[in-house]
Amino acid sequence: MPNKPLSELRSDPIDGHKVYIAEDRAGRPNDYAGVRIAEASAASCPFCAGHEGETPAATMEVPGNGPWQVRVIPNKYPAVRYDAVQVAGDAEAPSGAHEVIIESPRHLRDVAELSTDELTRVLGVYRDRLRHWSQDDRLQHATLFKNVGFAAGASLEHVHSQLVALPFVPAAVEAELEGSRRYYQTHGQCIYCRLLADELRLGTRLVARRGSYAAFCAYAGRQPYETWLLPQEHAAQFHELADSELAEFASLLQHVLGRLRRQLGELSYNLILHTLPFHSAEAQLYHWHWELIPRTSQLAGLEWGAGVHINPLSPERAAQKLRDGDR
Amino acid sequence: MPNKPLSELRSDPIDGHKVYIAEDRAGRPNDYAGVRIAEASAASCPFCAGHEGETPAATMEVPGNGPWQVRVIPNKYPAVRYDAVQVAGDAEAPSGAHEVIIESPRHLRDVAELSTDELTRVLGVYRDRLRHWSQDDRLQHATLFKNVGFAAGASLEHVHSQLVALPFVPAAVEAELEGSRRYYQTHGQCIYCRLLADELRLGTRLVARRGSYAAFCAYAGRQPYETWLLPQEHAAQFHELADSELAEFASLLQHVLGRLRRQLGELSYNLILHTLPFHSAEAQLYHWHWELIPRTSQLAGLEWGAGVHINPLSPERAAQKLRDGDR
Repeated sequence: MPNKPLSELRSDPIDGHKVYIAEDRAGRPNDYAGVRIAEASAASCPFCAGHEGETPAATMEVPGNGPWQVRVIPNKYPAVRYDAVQVAGDAEAPSGAHEVIIESPRHLRDVAELSTDELTRVLGVYRDRLRHWSQDDRLQHATLFKNVGFAAGASLEHVHSQLVALPFVPAAVEAELEGSRRYYQTHGQCIYCRLLADELRLGTRLVARRGSYAAFCAYAGRQPYETWLLPQEHAAQFHELADSELAEFASLLQHVLGRLRRQLGELSYNLILHTLPFHSAEAQLYHWHWELIPRTSQLAGLEWGAGVHINPLSPERAAQKLRDGDR
Repeated sequence: MPNKPLSELRSDPIDGHKVYIAEDRAGRPNDYAGVRIAEASAASCPFCAGHEGETPAATMEVPGNGPWQVRVIPNKYPAVRYDAVQVAGDAEAPSGAHEVIIESPRHLRDVAELSTDELTRVLGVYRDRLRHWSQDDRLQHATLFKNVGFAAGASLEHVHSQLVALPFVPAAVEAELEGSRRYYQTHGQCIYCRLLADELRLGTRLVARRGSYAAFCAYAGRQPYETWLLPQEHAAQFHELADSELAEFASLLQHVLGRLRRQLGELSYNLILHTLPFHSAEAQLYHWHWELIPRTSQLAGLEWGAGVHINPLSPERAAQKLRDGDR
């Protein structure tokens, strides 16, 4: 790895988003460098075992040591409501589903603190809930995501994920589909399969492999350490996974989170599942993957106004740090 | 204004981005509600008068009370470099301009603290720098933006803006252009002119008018209080403004910032100029405007993963609060 700071413009091979890798910027002065985000204060956490009465009734529970290990509830403050009534006017009524997956009865902050068996069961719940919603013809897609820490937009600290099923294909997924479609038309191959083959061959951005899964730092990562996790075998929908395929992925995810923590300390991050829309006939050209985005800086004017990102740490350097485990 | 919480899905009329207005969510519990961002510590600020030696030599200075009132410098830690050498390989070398506009010799935090005359001079500098870069055929567009406060991605507290001129039209601007083009082809009119006429007629999202400028809360605002400021007369490029047109806009901007501060206290915000690409022949269909986005919450998984925003305060309610000036 060269020590010279990297400075170049990159375009994401899938959706084309642009990122300036600008390692020179890492040394700039920062009036806010001393800013420390205070710890959350969760004196009375509605997600802890024993407080089930403070949340809606569970849709699904997975047993474990204690009252349950995983508990799925409708979001009490949903962005979208299932079975919402369509209203007149130019605005569409929200009609979708929004649920919360509580991933431990204990007040843990991160799935990295679960055992691999426990995380495997959590992944099984993700799969099962996606299967459930995929059977509703009115819903087109679900985004499953995890906000960990204040800087990642979490409002509650207790380890949990959210599932938002929508009556349309969201823009970010549509942009990936368009890119994948273009590539497939020209090359007759899934672009993610090709990308992964390249990453495994090059190795410079590879973070880790576990069985049939791999994790690498994204070529056009928008934030330092942005990491994608995906299956090496082509698969378009996460919810088609078999039970036997979950444990290896759980192990990879925990490994990557552990390495990130070694670099960044207690980190804030978003972890987002990208999966083919429910009723799509394009399974040949799309590949499910998780995008793990540590939130080390705020999105600022250029990101908001231009859609152009600036990343002060090259994905190659980030991957090397994660592989080596050195700080 | 009805007191019932609003819950609906909106699409932006220009670029189509989707926002769930979900006022129900305003009451949800928050472990991080007590988080206070510590003040910046700017013991030695490179942007203050007397510290000019710590920054690159000025490209432009506007005289004022003191050594200067406005000072333009190349960014010492640029995302893009002017006259960068093109490198081989699949990545493009950054080639663009990145400069900083320091808007007061005093350590102020916000342009709201300038006099209207001073802010008018600052706007004149924006205009002049855009004119300057617009004459370079290699550059396609410039984004002029201001990050104020930690939550908006600022690294220095001292009042300043940034200009990033790029050798391509950035994605967010291209998306607006596409929407504007579609509307123009069907209706033979600038979509922003139509939108503004509607907003002035309806009045529910209007915040203020000053002479020939208006400010309103965006119909599909992505964050509470997102406000757009624009000229009532059609104009595609900010850098074509005459000197005589700057003072009214300065007055409107200060008014809006004052009203926002009354609602939100010392706020973090991004203020971003959207203007027609330099060499475009589509002046008839695009309309320059500023997007002012107070940063009251973090972008989370749904925004990152799906491109779908959730806004817990309706634009109509936000505009009413800004008009009335009550908390």
